[in-house]
Amino acid sequence: MSNRLPDPKTNLSDWYQEIIHQAELADNAPVRGCIVIRPYGCDIWETIRNILDKKIKDTGHKNAMFPLLIPESFLKKEADHIEGFAPELAVVTHAGGKLLAEPLVVRPTSETIVHHMFAQWIKSYRDLPLLINQWANVVRWEMRPRAFLRTSEFFWQEGHTAHATEKEALDEVLLMLSIYKDLAENFLAIPVITGKKSEGEKFPGAITTYTFEGFMPDGKALQMGTSHLLSQSFAKAFDMKFQTKEGDVAYPWLTSWGTTTRLIGALVMTHGDKQGLVLPPRVAPIQVVIIPIYKTEAEREAVLLVAEKIKFSLAGKVRIYIDEDEQKTPGKKFYDWELRGVPVRLEIGPKDLAHEHAMVVDRLGIEKAPHPLKTIDTYLIQKLEALQKEMFDRATKRMKDMWVIQQNLDAIITASEWNFVQTGFCGSRECEAQLKPHKLSVRCLLNEKQVPNCCICSNPSASDCIVARSY
Amino acid sequence: MSNRLPDPKTNLSDWYQEIIHQAELADNAPVRGCIVIRPYGCDIWETIRNILDKKIKDTGHKNAMFPLLIPESFLKKEADHIEGFAPELAVVTHAGGKLLAEPLVVRPTSETIVHHMFAQWIKSYRDLPLLINQWANVVRWEMRPRAFLRTSEFFWQEGHTAHATEKEALDEVLLMLSIYKDLAENFLAIPVITGKKSEGEKFPGAITTYTFEGFMPDGKALQMGTSHLLSQSFAKAFDMKFQTKEGDVAYPWLTSWGTTTRLIGALVMTHGDKQGLVLPPRVAPIQVVIIPIYKTEAEREAVLLVAEKIKFSLAGKVRIYIDEDEQKTPGKKFYDWELRGVPVRLEIGPKDLAHEHAMVVDRLGIEKAPHPLKTIDTYLIQKLEALQKEMFDRATKRMKDMWVIQQNLDAIITASEWNFVQTGFCGSRECEAQLKPHKLSVRCLLNEKQVPNCCICSNPSASDCIVARSY
Repeated sequence: MSNRLPDPKTNLSDWYQEIIHQAELADNAPVRGCIVIRPYGCDIWETIRNILDKKIKDTGHKNAMFPLLIPESFLKKEADHIEGFAPELAVVTHAGGKLLAEPLVVRPTSETIVHHMFAQWIKSYRDLPLLINQWANVVRWEMRPRAFLRTSEFFWQEGHTAHATEKEALDEVLLMLSIYKDLAENFLAIPVITGKKSEGEKFPGAITTYTFEGFMPDGKALQMGTSHLLSQSFAKAFDMKFQTKEGDVAYPWLTSWGTTTRLIGALVMTHGDKQGLVLPPRVAPIQVVIIPIYKTEAEREAVLLVAEKIKFSLAGKVRIYIDEDEQKTPGKKFYDWELRGVPVRLEIGPKDLAHEHAMVVDRLGIEKAPHPLKTIDTYLIQKLEALQKEMFDRATKRMKDMWVIQQNLDAIITASEWNFVQTGFCGSRECEAQLKPHKLSVRCLLNEKQVPNCCICSNPSASDCIVARSY
Repeated sequence: MSNRLPDPKTNLSDWYQEIIHQAELADNAPVRGCIVIRPYGCDIWETIRNILDKKIKDTGHKNAMFPLLIPESFLKKEADHIEGFAPELAVVTHAGGKLLAEPLVVRPTSETIVHHMFAQWIKSYRDLPLLINQWANVVRWEMRPRAFLRTSEFFWQEGHTAHATEKEALDEVLLMLSIYKDLAENFLAIPVITGKKSEGEKFPGAITTYTFEGFMPDGKALQMGTSHLLSQSFAKAFDMKFQTKEGDVAYPWLTSWGTTTRLIGALVMTHGDKQGLVLPPRVAPIQVVIIPIYKTEAEREAVLLVAEKIKFSLAGKVRIYIDEDEQKTPGKKFYDWELRGVPVRLEIGPKDLAHEHAMVVDRLGIEKAPHPLKTIDTYLIQKLEALQKEMFDRATKRMKDMWVIQQNLDAIITASEWNFVQTGFCGSRECEAQLKPHKLSVRCLLNEKQVPNCCICSNPSASDCIVARSY
């Protein structure tokens, strides 16, 4: 039997851990910081992956597969890069029964190996832009693991591109950021704030990192993914050069961008409630669950016939599952599918058939009413779209309610207990460092200036920024 | 510029290496035995993967994701298993800047970690059957690497299932074998021989291993995948027990089954010719390439309009690519797409438009003739199906021509230089071992007995078997 969940409004952390387990999204693995993603979690990831993969391909990128193991010396070629990743590396020292001459690093990210190959593939401006993506597992040793949010191994896509000019590379960085924002807002129903990372938070080896940040119900920020304009030091380190149209030799401009299984954690926290998960229809592996209700075999047959008819008529349009499990009562099924966040439940019993309707119950608690079978197909499609919109609207309203403006550190510390804060920032690493003891950080820089002075040093602000606690 | 290929009929090995590189399927990686799968190779893998993934899901299996790193002690829990895999393991000894208390093995296969989790998930007969699959990368350190065929890291799916009875488990093993055979024959157009592995060749820890073996143009066998009925020692090692319907406690019966990126190597060798790859339509990322031919801008527009119309009318049915590259001549495009094995080329120029037809050229060299634009849609669909069938028929004919029956070792050694051999086999490990010095092995046992005596010891044969050199 399942246990009752803690209330996410008062205890998000315990609720999160429980719901991951009870909804069978993932279990802890017997290796530190690693999880096993169970079928329901994997279904959600595959749904998100298919959506994003199509967007990535539609914008001209192609998938490739680079090796898991990278010579240690490769990571050392770019100084900032190795400094950033060294503390998190897992290292293979033995293979095939022997000590390796050079240790191999389990990739924490693939810039180095990708750039090594790019250097062989790029000779002329005709080879540019080179637009590559890979879906892969990466390992970053994690001291404070949390399912989906921080795990020693995680799954992601990492895009790597090369361009003839800095402008083209920056356009690519911003294009991918916009695709991520679209994914978050229009599919995951999670409003995000996008912007540049500060000097202290940017990717090791990037000129500029853009981020899209979600804000969880406890006011904490969650970095959902990033898009980087890389320093040409990568191209130089790997001797990646090309002949320009004019016949000169130049270094390409490089980008990388990625998002991870962490998106599942964002989904869970943003929308969940005391009854369990609530999944936005567009990424729900099951959008409508049909619960047949019957006593006799004849009733069972009649009810299932109608259920199958609805499923068939919506094939390819709506992901429908008919729960025919004979070992569970309808009540237990209601409970289980609520826990798993299925957006719409259809109950069909003999009385419903007599009235030629089905009972429609949505996971947001908006509707529990019969609807005529005659028009149930089109109604379900509209209903799912309406729920998708409603979930985004609710999440947006909450985000706006949590978004406050403050002028100085003391006020920020107090406000950030339940909110996230827009404030002024001079941009210096010194001021940024003073947030750390308070478990706060600059989540991203904004393109506006409502607060005239830096919240730390009181010198003129370079731009507003968002300060928050974070996952 | 591309270079000419060796003739695969006289030099399959050099041809193979060259075509992998020239068709941009893969490049060698800077780590021993690893490759980079380039976009065209990745496209082929994704096409195969999507077909197989659907078949796996349609038969009730669900995908999950287990960790890459496995505690070394897990592998040691099943004696045969560790003995089989120990020489090939890559081992992580350091992580997060520290020496690990227990080394972690990069998974060579996932039985041990999967069974550890199964033991937590399976409590009662109601939890059975448990039908899980994962798409993953695995590492087995390779001393004689060869792109796709043998690489230190490779990509595969591995199915893991648990059943209440041995019979159900064996049914599962045979079901998956039949799905693999269907994939090989009806999609990859590669005829295969299926059967049990001998004692010397079966999976470490299996009671029975079934295999599907393809036979390459040089007579060598290629094991394309396997399906295992596992010994209950796995269940015992991981203390995996369940309560039966009758209230007893029992160990589940386990299976595992997998196939890999090696399928790409099989495709390449089975169908390729002196002009390059030849891809069966059902797994070709591009099934029809349209080459527009024009001189003036007006001609270009007219030709592309028709090309787009054909592409649009076949959207979702045929994978069409219009090669609009302005930097290549039509002749260069013909050469490049032949090299890449696209099944059908359509040439459309102003003269074709005047005659209201397009030139249809297939990669098998059967047809080079104009076809009316009016009926080109349905014609292309039929044409692709016909090519698929023709490729399977040709490959089947060649396999049959290479299949010879011999009675004794001397004759087998001679015949196996260009053929594969059906012969008698007593089934003993001793006899099997005598094949090894001749670089021969028992590929699989057959369900028939045409040769009365064992080819080695001359004692009565237990069944016929296939003996061959192998990849």
